[in-house]
Amino acid sequence: MTLALELCYDGSAYHGWQIQKNAVTVQETLSKAIQRATGAWPGPELSGCGRTDAGVSAASYIASFRTETPIPPDRFPWAIHGFLPPDISVRRAQQVPNGFHARFSCIKKEYVYTLYHSFLPHPFERNRAAFRPYPFNVDLMRSAAADLVGTHDFSAFCASGSAVRSPVRTVFHCNVTGDCDRVEIRICADGFLYNMVRIIAGTLVSVSEGKLPPDAVKKLLLSGDRTEAGITLPPCGLRLEQVWYGDEPGLDGINSNVRLFF
Amino acid sequence: MTLALELCYDGSAYHGWQIQKNAVTVQETLSKAIQRATGAWPGPELSGCGRTDAGVSAASYIASFRTETPIPPDRFPWAIHGFLPPDISVRRAQQVPNGFHARFSCIKKEYVYTLYHSFLPHPFERNRAAFRPYPFNVDLMRSAAADLVGTHDFSAFCASGSAVRSPVRTVFHCNVTGDCDRVEIRICADGFLYNMVRIIAGTLVSVSEGKLPPDAVKKLLLSGDRTEAGITLPPCGLRLEQVWYGDEPGLDGINSNVRLFF
Repeated sequence: MTLALELCYDGSAYHGWQIQKNAVTVQETLSKAIQRATGAWPGPELSGCGRTDAGVSAASYIASFRTETPIPPDRFPWAIHGFLPPDISVRRAQQVPNGFHARFSCIKKEYVYTLYHSFLPHPFERNRAAFRPYPFNVDLMRSAAADLVGTHDFSAFCASGSAVRSPVRTVFHCNVTGDCDRVEIRICADGFLYNMVRIIAGTLVSVSEGKLPPDAVKKLLLSGDRTEAGITLPPCGLRLEQVWYGDEPGLDGINSNVRLFF
Repeated sequence: MTLALELCYDGSAYHGWQIQKNAVTVQETLSKAIQRATGAWPGPELSGCGRTDAGVSAASYIASFRTETPIPPDRFPWAIHGFLPPDISVRRAQQVPNGFHARFSCIKKEYVYTLYHSFLPHPFERNRAAFRPYPFNVDLMRSAAADLVGTHDFSAFCASGSAVRSPVRTVFHCNVTGDCDRVEIRICADGFLYNMVRIIAGTLVSVSEGKLPPDAVKKLLLSGDRTEAGITLPPCGLRLEQVWYGDEPGLDGINSNVRLFF
């Protein structure tokens, strides 16, 4: 059968999702835990809903793999719990149609970038929000964020050197909430370019701080010039909030209409 | 002059406040940072407002030391920032009367113990709240907490083997807020016995879960029997919230009436 897992992880100790040769990643850690929980050898071929960067967290990450384990899916979170470190947790498991692929079947994702303002970085915010020394102008950020909604060429918001087929993505919403001391940028799209959310957050902060004009986003979408956008903010402020395979987010959205890959 | 610092720290990586031979503590880390920031050698004799246990955090901890540094107190947080790890931060510094002692001058303290309910421990709650597998009965907890208020012999809520002159303390308030999924116990007293807040939290949880009767606290205050109280809950849920040297909490309360020690 194919099993899909809903994970939550604090990514601050990991070099992202994807297995790497010389660094500990979430995929590798989860794969080893599945091996030990199911007794499978070699470990499962594990697909994840996206390649979160080093230091990025996930509130609801979906991974999938084929398994012959007799552990009932609803008991799987308890079965694997003891083999996982405390910063990774399987919250749910569900059998899904064969051919389901956590990455390719995904139709949209939502990320949240959290920022706080203080005179010096605060220990309680470490690894969960990005520090800024200036207060936020939420109105300016909200207005610039609205300009991102729609189908655009997001080249200006993509780290240089990344090789993607097309820089065109559709942003369904980009909402800014909070106040001058704390801001959440919530952005949902059918896909994201490399570092896209962190560059968008950096650009909105530049608009907030007056380093870029209020219409900067509009111009950037036309120019496609990465050098004119804001900086790439640190990964600690970013978390993958939820992913969709159907109408509902997460595992609940995986129904008979889900895109399958064989 | 005598300088008082207001610190904030995430205690999860430290073996408490007090310097120890074979473990890293907040006092040692701060002392080394002061040495480097002020150039003083040997390091300052640093007094702290209390001996927080290993793994316990502090939102507003007061420490004091004598120094001849020319750094103006209002610039001190920036001067020391680069010498401190990201889980410890000096938020304010203030010159105080000679004879001020962060521990002995203190007249009351407030701790907060945070608990969350989930089917399995949650990565985002790690090091900031204690996990419970059962939902909370806030009404039962609140009513039992109210029984703690007043001047009592708190022997039943003190770890065995601790040597204190008197087990009598005055609790000014003990408020329980939250809902069935998340609870905060906020307790303010003129002093605390060893592990007192963690045993109180464990006892309130036992009342909530029906393992102890609703009048358990009343009986424990009379019996003084530690073995009849709840377990000592883990340090991750505990933080020192604020301390008083006068009417106002923290540095603002240090005025001409403060208790001095020479």
